Amino acid sequence: MKFKERISELVRDRKSLICVGLDSDLNKIPEHLHSNDNPILEFNKQIIDATSDLCVAYKPNLAFYECLGSQGWETLKATIAVVPNNVPVIVDAKRGDIGNTSRMYAQAIFDYLGGDAITLTPYLGEDSLAPFFEYKDKFAFVLALTSNPSSQDFQLLEVAGKPLYHIVAEAVQRWNKNDNLGLVVGASHPDKIKEVREISGNLPFLIPGVGAQGGDLEASAKFGTDNGKSIALINVSRSVIYASDGVDFAEKAREEVLRLNREMSEFEIF
Amino acid sequence: MKFKERISELVRDRKSLICVGLDSDLNKIPEHLHSNDNPILEFNKQIIDATSDLCVAYKPNLAFYECLGSQGWETLKATIAVVPNNVPVIVDAKRGDIGNTSRMYAQAIFDYLGGDAITLTPYLGEDSLAPFFEYKDKFAFVLALTSNPSSQDFQLLEVAGKPLYHIVAEAVQRWNKNDNLGLVVGASHPDKIKEVREISGNLPFLIPGVGAQGGDLEASAKFGTDNGKSIALINVSRSVIYASDGVDFAEKAREEVLRLNREMSEFEIF
Repeated sequence: MKFKERISELVRDRKSLICVGLDSDLNKIPEHLHSNDNPILEFNKQIIDATSDLCVAYKPNLAFYECLGSQGWETLKATIAVVPNNVPVIVDAKRGDIGNTSRMYAQAIFDYLGGDAITLTPYLGEDSLAPFFEYKDKFAFVLALTSNPSSQDFQLLEVAGKPLYHIVAEAVQRWNKNDNLGLVVGASHPDKIKEVREISGNLPFLIPGVGAQGGDLEASAKFGTDNGKSIALINVSRSVIYASDGVDFAEKAREEVLRLNREMSEFEIF
Repeated sequence: MKFKERISELVRDRKSLICVGLDSDLNKIPEHLHSNDNPILEFNKQIIDATSDLCVAYKPNLAFYECLGSQGWETLKATIAVVPNNVPVIVDAKRGDIGNTSRMYAQAIFDYLGGDAITLTPYLGEDSLAPFFEYKDKFAFVLALTSNPSSQDFQLLEVAGKPLYHIVAEAVQRWNKNDNLGLVVGASHPDKIKEVREISGNLPFLIPGVGAQGGDLEASAKFGTDNGKSIALINVSRSVIYASDGVDFAEKAREEVLRLNREMSEFEIF
């Protein structure tokens, strides 16, 4: 089954849009794990064990693994391998380079790490992303509007009467020949999620920025899914994985996902 | 000595602008190296041995190492370690993410790998790149105009009467508070190199696309350096490192750099 169908099924069955961000940081995981051979892997395993029947995807951010070098890469590969097969993994890599280079990145993320989806940055245009699109059973979320304050520097600039992120959203629709593309739209701009949804047909959205970054869950869920008619994944990292810094961290992470799912059950989107 | 000064000194002493791109690919390196424990590392070592007194920088593209997973990361770290200390290494990573994530990428590239400079993608704006800029002794080249055909998709769009890549070039000048920023400007647009030089003061340029991608060496060198008044590095990958697929590959790589340096000696830019 393809990524989009897997996600649709999980959203329907679990009544959840939650993607758990595995931005696992040695400086933030509970003290007691540090005596473990591989503290980050043990942390991830316990978070996954505690949440993989409740969420619809995981999203490790590659930076948190790369900063540990080759061992970080091993840890990420091992983490992806312990995620149950029915739950897809989005590797948040924000890659994008000239064609022959992007082909190598696609191999790294899809073939070596075993990711099901990737995030991409659009600045180099279509031929820089095409090598990812060619993996028909994989999926790519292209950055349209990000959740950080400086997203305004370029993404909001007006081009031919509309903001650049609209132009990107329209381009991604044109590029979506294999029905395996979606958009990243940050939760810090709920009005803009609505706007992008209106011009993007039913492209799946990945919405970061709820939780520690302050984005609004209800607006993100309703606008992102167009009240349940499209797919939107809402990524939550720090508020779930660091819900507790004690030995109960996994249990508390589970409680937080349950709480989010309960909150979403009132939005009438499932 | 800081990156910019190191480059200036090497350019003056060696009368070269050549940056050798270490885009080393298992499928393209000479057959006889495959029996080695680490063929890519052996290939890189021999290329570096044969060229490190002639060029002014090396630029490994991270994708070519990441596709080999954790071993690729080890190989890249080991490669950077064998480059003589006086020759800087630009890690071509095209990173850019929200602040707390970019901080991790900066650690990966500068602290773990030991790179002297990095390439960055501007789509997320200033706060996404600031964690790199804060490494005052390191250097960052931000993508303005790339060498691939699809660079026109977004980079050439008109914003307030000028193309987006001008807006990016101007932003990078504003962000350059630590005098450690430069621009990537592709060699496939020689007229535009001239244009960007005119609006970018003396920001160092990194110019890819000469050689296999067909860019013009003379135009790139003259326009990029404003006839010797600014710094421009010209990256050459495939035409140097794959100059021969035999046992003489390193010798042929050296000959190709010598040939490029001879060609540049006629441009009156040193």
